[in-house]
Amino acid sequence: MKYHTLLIPTLKDAPAEAELVSHKLLVRAGFVRKLSAGIYSFLPLGWRTLRKVEAIIRAEMDAAGAQEVLLPLTHPAEIWQQSGRWYQYGAELLRFKDRKGGDFCLAPTHEEAITTLVRDNVRSYRELPMNLYQIQFKFRDEPRPRGGLLRCREFIMKDAYSFDADAAGARRSYQAMYAAYTRMFTRMGFRFRVVQADTGNIGGDLSHEFQALADTGEDSMLACTACDWAANVEKADVPKAPDATPPTPAEALAKVHTPNVRTVDEVAAFLKVDATRVVKTLLLNADGKPVAAMVRGDHDLNLVKLNKLVGAKELDLAEAAMVEAVTHAPVGFAGPVGLGDNVPVYVDQWVASMSDFVIGANVGDHHYVHAALGRDFRATAVADLRVATTADPCPSCGAALKEYRGIELGHIFYLSTKYSKPMQANFLDADGKTIPIEMGCYGIGVSRILPSIIEQSSDERGIIWPIAIAPFEVVVMGLQSDVPEVVAAADALYEGLKARGLDVLYDDRDERAGVKFADNDLIGVPFQVVVGKKGLAEGKIELKRRATGEKELVPVEQAVEHVIRLVQEEHARFRP
Amino acid sequence: MKYHTLLIPTLKDAPAEAELVSHKLLVRAGFVRKLSAGIYSFLPLGWRTLRKVEAIIRAEMDAAGAQEVLLPLTHPAEIWQQSGRWYQYGAELLRFKDRKGGDFCLAPTHEEAITTLVRDNVRSYRELPMNLYQIQFKFRDEPRPRGGLLRCREFIMKDAYSFDADAAGARRSYQAMYAAYTRMFTRMGFRFRVVQADTGNIGGDLSHEFQALADTGEDSMLACTACDWAANVEKADVPKAPDATPPTPAEALAKVHTPNVRTVDEVAAFLKVDATRVVKTLLLNADGKPVAAMVRGDHDLNLVKLNKLVGAKELDLAEAAMVEAVTHAPVGFAGPVGLGDNVPVYVDQWVASMSDFVIGANVGDHHYVHAALGRDFRATAVADLRVATTADPCPSCGAALKEYRGIELGHIFYLSTKYSKPMQANFLDADGKTIPIEMGCYGIGVSRILPSIIEQSSDERGIIWPIAIAPFEVVVMGLQSDVPEVVAAADALYEGLKARGLDVLYDDRDERAGVKFADNDLIGVPFQVVVGKKGLAEGKIELKRRATGEKELVPVEQAVEHVIRLVQEEHARFRP
Repeated sequence: MKYHTLLIPTLKDAPAEAELVSHKLLVRAGFVRKLSAGIYSFLPLGWRTLRKVEAIIRAEMDAAGAQEVLLPLTHPAEIWQQSGRWYQYGAELLRFKDRKGGDFCLAPTHEEAITTLVRDNVRSYRELPMNLYQIQFKFRDEPRPRGGLLRCREFIMKDAYSFDADAAGARRSYQAMYAAYTRMFTRMGFRFRVVQADTGNIGGDLSHEFQALADTGEDSMLACTACDWAANVEKADVPKAPDATPPTPAEALAKVHTPNVRTVDEVAAFLKVDATRVVKTLLLNADGKPVAAMVRGDHDLNLVKLNKLVGAKELDLAEAAMVEAVTHAPVGFAGPVGLGDNVPVYVDQWVASMSDFVIGANVGDHHYVHAALGRDFRATAVADLRVATTADPCPSCGAALKEYRGIELGHIFYLSTKYSKPMQANFLDADGKTIPIEMGCYGIGVSRILPSIIEQSSDERGIIWPIAIAPFEVVVMGLQSDVPEVVAAADALYEGLKARGLDVLYDDRDERAGVKFADNDLIGVPFQVVVGKKGLAEGKIELKRRATGEKELVPVEQAVEHVIRLVQEEHARFRP
Repeated sequence: MKYHTLLIPTLKDAPAEAELVSHKLLVRAGFVRKLSAGIYSFLPLGWRTLRKVEAIIRAEMDAAGAQEVLLPLTHPAEIWQQSGRWYQYGAELLRFKDRKGGDFCLAPTHEEAITTLVRDNVRSYRELPMNLYQIQFKFRDEPRPRGGLLRCREFIMKDAYSFDADAAGARRSYQAMYAAYTRMFTRMGFRFRVVQADTGNIGGDLSHEFQALADTGEDSMLACTACDWAANVEKADVPKAPDATPPTPAEALAKVHTPNVRTVDEVAAFLKVDATRVVKTLLLNADGKPVAAMVRGDHDLNLVKLNKLVGAKELDLAEAAMVEAVTHAPVGFAGPVGLGDNVPVYVDQWVASMSDFVIGANVGDHHYVHAALGRDFRATAVADLRVATTADPCPSCGAALKEYRGIELGHIFYLSTKYSKPMQANFLDADGKTIPIEMGCYGIGVSRILPSIIEQSSDERGIIWPIAIAPFEVVVMGLQSDVPEVVAAADALYEGLKARGLDVLYDDRDERAGVKFADNDLIGVPFQVVVGKKGLAEGKIELKRRATGEKELVPVEQAVEHVIRLVQEEHARFRP
């Protein structure tokens, strides 16, 4: 296509709110524009990239035997009430009323809609197994949309749902999707890692995430340095605490004056104890109600693990006003003693194994020393509540762990009968018995593929697209638009490459060479064919690889064949 | 693809609510399922057909130089307030609040979103002309969703928007879309007609509809029997009334007793006058307020023309309670005398040219005779308010008109600066002057293409798809799934046709021949290759054309070539 006919509004400056390089570059290179918080328009380049991502996903889903469908975006409350999630979801589920006052929502996911479809249209074991997928918008009213396309409110997902007659079949379906995802992300050019994951709002009892490795990623993962084990820290189990019944300390609980001493490190230094002898009491807001959680001073609270006990729609650190209302003290001195019966206290197992420790006193500038669980305060529940760390051994083999950061590309879940049972999606087996269908679900954040790859692949000049999902495979630039030979040679190369089936952008603009170089490096098409007066005088064009900056001079008459060979080789690099 | 792996839930019975054959067949053949009123899921066959429709649209839009983009579904109120439509739209615009209380809507159309994008990213005349399109969902909260996919609340549209530096350019862009639409609908296999159309909610001053001809269509069109003129009746002008200043009748207004006489025909018969001497007074509900409109007894009120004067968000016939509250009489006796100042009275120009006529008396069982406009009652406005009919002459050449019914497939509008002016979408011309961009917009109801073609193409056995948008080009059926030679021959034909690039369905189910014949006739794939024991014994397969039922026996070894030739010929029939 010709550059001058395309809407490619490149910018010198990124939007002020953009922190991630992918956010800056997608806007600067004219791929997307924000319409509202977490709501984006895809411009022609963004759309082309998205289509290539979708084509790879479709090819691998179809090859895995899945069938494409298209489910609605607006759902009647009824189906969400049948699954129970109408009541479990918080404000992320955008609810609205239609003109007749009926309750509806914008679909944040489609388990309910697909289960309804299959329940009403599948009868017999002979119709199973079945895997139905779609590429469709979702809407989740995120409290903090951010990162450009990385955390949107309106976004595109590929979601697939498998239906099997039994658990063994469901696991085969799960494995088939695991393999298909591995192929897709390989083809797209990702460096990624598959990790065990939490099942969150979706439910079920087996789940893996496909994580693009990136230091800027929101997710933290741990992986064993010796065996295959890897997990999202949200999910990673920690070892059992060493002592389930520690001795009660000889000394009684004692309040001490700790002026201006709030953080664990400050408390430890002031009282001259190790941070492992201090226990943090964190206050959380669970759908508007306060909840306390205690973890050792050197540990971090895992909100996902905590919420398995609390069961809140939304669980977050309490704001200062709630902390002060509950503790009757300034922030920084919260403790479990005297919190009142209406505040449940959840205690990490590693705290429960400690025998003599420091806690906040719920009084400004004071802490208690010689605290003991059971004697001085009670736990509503004791459980694994903390984040695993590289100080923990591998849960599988005991070797050391390493931490990675990542961006979630895909997530697969074995659901068993979590939806089919309440929604009565049953089938008749060979003996005529009615049995709930075994389900799995499999998501890919299609629109977030774009920023995810850029977080792995860019430089100071712009984006570096892997060839399979680049908006074009090659760009042809004529440097002097006022020199007829240059224009004629560039025209001929463009037409020649196009005729051979390549996806070619032709920068035919009447712009200075510097502008063309800068714009095309920003856009990130993998191969640049540069036609200039000087080179042409010697019968040559310049071929530049965007990723490495490598340049070579190629005789004009060999250029088409040479570019085709390079493009083919580049595609071959990403074949799974 | 293999039939047994696909979700194709064919049904014997159509849903009770389905009246149109397309609605019945799309459900019975397993193409779609309803999730809620006007909200549908596309199953694998529906999705395949939709994708073929989309591919034709994309090919013709791209060939016309348009660029594909993808705009959001959820819009902030702000952009709709800038255009003013936030206040003009009725309940069809589904408004909602996000978690922060911000006002949003589900996009019923995208003029605001695209104008925002272009305003913020286009600066100079050098970037024009430009045509941006998308294939995207819309949501319109229709008061009466009906006809299956024909009138949905959630539906898929192709919408394009052209941007030009001047009116001449905008008209060229309009003509290019006119030509592209003509090609698309020809390729899809439609019998269609292009007619002048009203601009409705979208605005502008030039507009055409592409109407699929169908007796069941919601739209009524008039076309000249002599010249090219054709228009939607909503839009069709009627001739000027013969006498703008009729004489005042000698007799005074007189109330007469007309017991149980309500309709125009009853009144005319009772009073022994022609229906053309009776004037109907219709009461309408305009956003909750009453409005009266008068047309001659043998004419029909055109709501679209009336609303150009009223300017209501929603205008509909008043319910009985409103009629009775306004006229203080039972329904059937409404008239303009004594309606009160708060009820505007709009009078059709043909009524204004009458001099002595009958009207309702706003008293049960009574009418007035010898009524005169001006003397007995006043008009808020006199205008062309009635529907054109075949009794009117062609507005262009005066010849006779003929009526057609149709289903709107596409609608194109020249918008001029209706959106660019209020939203300040300007560009700098060659002299550095700031000028609002000239716009056009161009819609196609993508999902309603499916029922529209079925209204033109079906029989008592099921759907007859034109080949370009059929879910498959050919279906191969093996009749005896327990006879190894039959299965082997059918397998080989399926693989052979697939290898040659045909889009083949293979009915490999273990079902009776009768079930296979019925299901495949219902689904409507254009060519059926039937492999049976009897034919095979003579080395032949049967080839059936779904449209005509024509059958021929073909030697097995020639079957693949023969089918390929027929498929190619069939495609060629629809080439524009």
